[in-house]
Amino acid sequence: MEVIGRTRWAIPEGYIPSASVSSERALVSHETACILNAGDRDAHIALTVFFANRDPVGPYPIVVPARRTLHLRFNDLTDPQPIPRDTDYASVFESDVPIVVQHTRLDSRRAEIALLSTVAYAEG
Amino acid sequence: MEVIGRTRWAIPEGYIPSASVSSERALVSHETACILNAGDRDAHIALTVFFANRDPVGPYPIVVPARRTLHLRFNDLTDPQPIPRDTDYASVFESDVPIVVQHTRLDSRRAEIALLSTVAYAEG
Amino acid sequence: MEVIGRTRWAIPEGYIPSASVSSERALVSHETACILNAGDRDAHIALTVFFANRDPVGPYPIVVPARRTLHLRFNDLTDPQPIPRDTDYASVFESDVPIVVQHTRLDSRRAEIALLSTVAYAEG
Amino acid sequence: MEVIGRTRWAIPEGYIPSASVSSERALVSHETACILNAGDRDAHIALTVFFANRDPVGPYPIVVPARRTLHLRFNDLTDPQPIPRDTDYASVFESDVPIVVQHTRLDSRRAEIALLSTVAYAEG
Repeated sequence: MEVIGRTRWAIPEGYIPSASVSSERALVSHETACILNAGDRDAHIALTVFFANRDPVGPYPIVVPARRTLHLRFNDLTDPQPIPRDTDYASVFESDVPIVVQHTRLDSRRAEIALLSTVAYAEG
Repeated sequence: MEVIGRTRWAIPEGYIPSASVSSERALVSHETACILNAGDRDAHIALTVFFANRDPVGPYPIVVPARRTLHLRFNDLTDPQPIPRDTDYASVFESDVPIVVQHTRLDSRRAEIALLSTVAYAEG
Repeated sequence: MEVIGRTRWAIPEGYIPSASVSSERALVSHETACILNAGDRDAHIALTVFFANRDPVGPYPIVVPARRTLHLRFNDLTDPQPIPRDTDYASVFESDVPIVVQHTRLDSRRAEIALLSTVAYAEG
Repeated sequence: MEVIGRTRWAIPEGYIPSASVSSERALVSHETACILNAGDRDAHIALTVFFANRDPVGPYPIVVPARRTLHLRFNDLTDPQPIPRDTDYASVFESDVPIVVQHTRLDSRRAEIALLSTVAYAEG
């Protein structure tokens, strides 16, 4: 397969609600960056997180092996520091090989879930 | 970080329901433009709002500092005038430096919330 | 304002549920194409609707005046014929001036509403 | 109508919940790729599915006739093998003629449905 994708991606929307009606992992409120690396070389990605009122945090190092997808939960990030809950943020992904990034949020603050998704903004 | 983004963005969909089941700020029905300015210079943005049956309103002046994100609620805009509720509108953002814009609506007219989101249309 | 947009847009997803829990117009299940014409000339648009198992229908003629937005409900189309309910369809918009198109569905088959939205695919 | 679209499309997000509250086909949890072939030649498409921890599967052969749309449910794919439930995946579409692809998920794990949709990432 030919390489598909871009090397720089931005997701302006980010917000992890602290509340969830479920403690089942699949239904806990979460933000996900779905990353596809369809190429033959591993992708080494630097993720930077931006906030409204303080300096950006990062890079968070991420590896997506060749011909694999990673559905990265922002909830799971810990190094250099966890993403604060109930706080607006944004994110930028910089990869050494072309990737494709899609943003999804599952929101289970209320009894029923809500979903959003969009392909991120790409350059490079 | 290299600059990422474009200078002109459009969001054709806009609608702020007047009803919400919650008065908690996070769960009041709202329309948001999530703006990321990942660059080293502050972004000065002119927002124009379009309607179905009358002349556009604006510019609404918006500043997003360097290396910050702003999750702008249309509900909060007051100058030159508030956005009417229960009314179709659209919006265009013109910035002096590259930014990235994502549109999100949280709709809480009913007991459970609904969400939508999409990266806006970009040029420039 | 400079002109913003493209002249050809496609929305592959289309589906109008026949059922709604509400008869209030704002909460009836509907598909919407939000069209922004930010320019100084009226937009004359030809909409063609595609199906899975029969020939396309159209053009549906649409006018969006200069500096106006139209949130077009597919439910309301009647000429040359209404869009069938509970049927997969897709749509293409061809305009004589640049426009921006965003697709939104409100689904109220169940007691609570669901929303989806995406900026359409653009060319031209 | 002029041809509209691209020949290579990627959808990084994929996840089919095994649970649904309804057994009615329209309301069973499903992932859909809405494909529009607005041109005058049939589209022959090779779909490849990527996973987190194993090799990609495919190609799944898909035909969308000229001037038709196909709302393809990943749930229905069987050859070379069904898509596993409750598993993260991603997909790439390679077509011999231009097409447009939009991704939609209906999630009915809970009593009320949730929807997401985005135009896929395009190249070619």
